Amino acid sequence: MNKNYAPTMKDVAREADVALGTVSKVVNGIPVGPVYKKKVEQAIAALGYEVNTYARGLKTQRTKTITLIIPDTKNPFYAAFTYHIESATYKRGYKLILCCSNSSPEKEIEYLSLASQNKTDGIIALTYSDIGDYIPAGIPLVAFDRYFENAAIPRVSSDNFSGGILAVNKLLELGCKKPIFVRLHSRFPGETDKRMQGYLEACKKQNLVPDYLNELDCDDARNRIKQFISNRINPDGTLGFDGVFANTDYHGYMILKILQELGYQAPADVQIIGFDGISKFGGEEDLFVSSICQPIPELAELCIDTILNEDNRVIPSLSLLPVYYRWGGTTKKENQ
Amino acid sequence: MNKNYAPTMKDVAREADVALGTVSKVVNGIPVGPVYKKKVEQAIAALGYEVNTYARGLKTQRTKTITLIIPDTKNPFYAAFTYHIESATYKRGYKLILCCSNSSPEKEIEYLSLASQNKTDGIIALTYSDIGDYIPAGIPLVAFDRYFENAAIPRVSSDNFSGGILAVNKLLELGCKKPIFVRLHSRFPGETDKRMQGYLEACKKQNLVPDYLNELDCDDARNRIKQFISNRINPDGTLGFDGVFANTDYHGYMILKILQELGYQAPADVQIIGFDGISKFGGEEDLFVSSICQPIPELAELCIDTILNEDNRVIPSLSLLPVYYRWGGTTKKENQ
Repeated sequence: MNKNYAPTMKDVAREADVALGTVSKVVNGIPVGPVYKKKVEQAIAALGYEVNTYARGLKTQRTKTITLIIPDTKNPFYAAFTYHIESATYKRGYKLILCCSNSSPEKEIEYLSLASQNKTDGIIALTYSDIGDYIPAGIPLVAFDRYFENAAIPRVSSDNFSGGILAVNKLLELGCKKPIFVRLHSRFPGETDKRMQGYLEACKKQNLVPDYLNELDCDDARNRIKQFISNRINPDGTLGFDGVFANTDYHGYMILKILQELGYQAPADVQIIGFDGISKFGGEEDLFVSSICQPIPELAELCIDTILNEDNRVIPSLSLLPVYYRWGGTTKKENQ
Repeated sequence: MNKNYAPTMKDVAREADVALGTVSKVVNGIPVGPVYKKKVEQAIAALGYEVNTYARGLKTQRTKTITLIIPDTKNPFYAAFTYHIESATYKRGYKLILCCSNSSPEKEIEYLSLASQNKTDGIIALTYSDIGDYIPAGIPLVAFDRYFENAAIPRVSSDNFSGGILAVNKLLELGCKKPIFVRLHSRFPGETDKRMQGYLEACKKQNLVPDYLNELDCDDARNRIKQFISNRINPDGTLGFDGVFANTDYHGYMILKILQELGYQAPADVQIIGFDGISKFGGEEDLFVSSICQPIPELAELCIDTILNEDNRVIPSLSLLPVYYRWGGTTKKENQ
């Protein structure tokens, strides 16, 4: 063949006698039948087609955009994460494409394909869908919190395990003797699962018998929690626990309201610590509950650094950032 | 000149003996010195340069993106607006570029220039900056809430005036005799100014003496409101008012907390209605206060329809959508 001529995907398709889409799939690591896969690979070898040039994007092909896939921006944690991702993106001279997926796998897959088509330079994905099988290999993708069993994707998250331990230790330090744990979770594996592992580990270390609600999230979650709490009211009306570690601030606040309905006050009767560190109007003040806070600005910076990797470092497959406790009205103040 | 040759901006710059940037400014309606303006206009006429083709973007040049300029996504109203703008954008086959401006005029002007450079097909701007002088003429721009004195820009907003009247009438209907109004506002003119006009109009119609706090927003806002309320506590400890219409839910919630601090309860001692209709976790439940709600999904749809104008209708310079009252815990329930 002519050495001055750089073969294209079309040439590969013609040589392999397959559709262009089949070549694209192979190049992007998306499964095709083994016969087709072999045909394409042989054609690529015969023509000397350079996969990387196509699939990865040259410097000059950069779109200078980063894409964020997030369920929505209405949830205060997602809202704050989106805000700080936009800031970190802009700071580096990039613009942000926003995809609110509503957990629709179709929409998420469509936006993932922007990266394999070189229409965006990188993707940050916060997703609770079953899309592990559809993630093209080698695209610049960072997963926040979520773990995909069938794709090697760099992950960024908070140190949820340490956070779980910190929550229990803080409750004990503030005078609690019996901290319970409440968790309603998605069916997908992720780093946030480690909050409960932290709770269990801390109980073990402190010789406490763990007592927890750990169920799949459902429409009936509020009633499930209310029942769980009601079952722990003693015949004399006192509570069978004096501390709650809730897996999220959202559930911590729900528990606060349930306890108030049942006639108990926080922090007088029971102390509550949530997880996330979100506030009512998105500012620094007015947390929903006392909380183990995720360092959202730093997490956003780390996601963008990981995806752009401007220093060409080896990218860690998992990076965890430290969390911290903040008082938010539902725990006693320290040194009181 | 050769009739088959379409002149470019560069040709205009050469003909006029000015810099390319000067031609760009004239074409985009950005002010330049009168001498330069005349030079460029003469060159455009001499060469038969077609301004519209360049400045407006041909169908084939479309980027299929819409850009949203918003102060941040952390404030629950902005968070919900962003979410629904993304949904409406995606529904029409477009992608959303998100700009969280932090009210930085420089950042806003940079993103506005995306439209004059044909790098985005339209811009929705929710801005409280002084950028009226920097908006290029003729770019596809819709302003939410804000009114620019020196640029003719289609505006989309809620019917704030009717909302103000509705708030007062609802408080009276629920038994209030003396509704006050509290507003901390930005220094820029906008549609939300009409909430207060609605309050005043309703007071007039109902023969009530208006009583209100109407000041520029400041760091000290909470103390200002607390003082305003404290000044209205009678010597016997009763309140000199029994209803509050707050200009935003944010301030309505702040007033609720201040009243609780002072030992008053809502809705028993005083009823509170805010404006916006935002909820604590972005869902349908759990409003911060009873509220005059903005129809956020419909407002987002209307912004996108206005910017894309796919039917080539005459674009209204102002479109107002109706608001509605929703109970949120700080007013008495109807028929009680």
